[in-house]
Amino acid sequence: MSQEKSLLNKLVFSLQCLPGVGRKSAQRMAYHLLDKDREGALRLANDLKSAMDEIGNCERCRDYTEASLCEICRNEKRNEQTLCVVESPADVAAIESTGSYTGKYFVLMGNLSPLDGIGPDEIGLNQLKTLVEQTDCQEIIVATSATVEGEATAHFISTIVQGVKDKQVSVSRLAQGVPIGGELEYLDSSTLALSLANRQSI
Amino acid sequence: MSQEKSLLNKLVFSLQCLPGVGRKSAQRMAYHLLDKDREGALRLANDLKSAMDEIGNCERCRDYTEASLCEICRNEKRNEQTLCVVESPADVAAIESTGSYTGKYFVLMGNLSPLDGIGPDEIGLNQLKTLVEQTDCQEIIVATSATVEGEATAHFISTIVQGVKDKQVSVSRLAQGVPIGGELEYLDSSTLALSLANRQSI
Ligand SMILES: [Zn+2]
Ligand SMILES: [Zn+2]
Repeated sequence: MSQEKSLLNKLVFSLQCLPGVGRKSAQRMAYHLLDKDREGALRLANDLKSAMDEIGNCERCRDYTEASLCEICRNEKRNEQTLCVVESPADVAAIESTGSYTGKYFVLMGNLSPLDGIGPDEIGLNQLKTLVEQTDCQEIIVATSATVEGEATAHFISTIVQGVKDKQVSVSRLAQGVPIGGELEYLDSSTLALSLANRQSI
Repeated sequence: MSQEKSLLNKLVFSLQCLPGVGRKSAQRMAYHLLDKDREGALRLANDLKSAMDEIGNCERCRDYTEASLCEICRNEKRNEQTLCVVESPADVAAIESTGSYTGKYFVLMGNLSPLDGIGPDEIGLNQLKTLVEQTDCQEIIVATSATVEGEATAHFISTIVQGVKDKQVSVSRLAQGVPIGGELEYLDSSTLALSLANRQSI
């Protein structure tokens, strides 16, 4: 008996790499795919491999992309004078879904967290500074989460940006409307749109 | 802008083939894999492909297996005189998890449902009859769900088995303990073990 080594058991194990999927759901997923959607499962296998092999970070904004520059950075219709700084690619998607932002982004891929060894370099703040220096950027909207780390990161960014020589860049934070302690990714679009409209100077 | 065709969007779409996974969770899964577990995602891609390409049905019991006979059918230590008839591979796994059954299985892969065109042939009842005729089977435990279709299927099986010539096969049903309308797959192991121990003649 080597039940543990069967392809089905391997699949049930591998499915548990998905967040929120335990043994029981993984088993249910495996049976569902075998029973009813082998084609979908093969497409998923293929798309997982392509995505993991080919998706890297945009050279300009650090968002995920399979190209050297992401689609938003490549899009010349987007306003380059406004830069929205977010924690994660999921936050870019959340803001895009409001349809009320036409500027560009910079993705930190985290927040400052000195105790975890995450300093300014790890979240690309040098790269952000260079971007502000070398482009026509006039305004920075810091859209980090309303958490302790998010606030600390926002203030740090504000200091850096206002230290750029020979340039006056306004720095704002998302308006009241983001719940205290809330994570951007889970906000509804209309609250998020309101927060963008009412952004406040910091 | 061809945002819809990016590898990330393709992956978010493909992940929705998983049961219970909508757009929002698929997005969260994709970001989690890209951020934190590319290795797990590649292993999942690989295991999905192997499973979908290679897993078929056991020639004897119809359970899922990549071999011609599944591990339980191949296992000579399992008692061949008792055959437990279940609706699905998930039910085999549920009964195995009780650790209180040492016989073999037959998997219907469904229930009788004439209105949906699922008759005796579709759930392998000819094959089940042949199995009873040609092996040392002495007892059949019908472990279909306590639903209308499950009960109808159980009675149909009982009639077929008791019609096998020159052989006295006892047919039982899982004991009281399976909740009315309940599906086997979601039962806790101890209720299921109790139901096996108290199985009743039908
Ligand atoms: Zn970019
Ligand atoms: Zn088998």
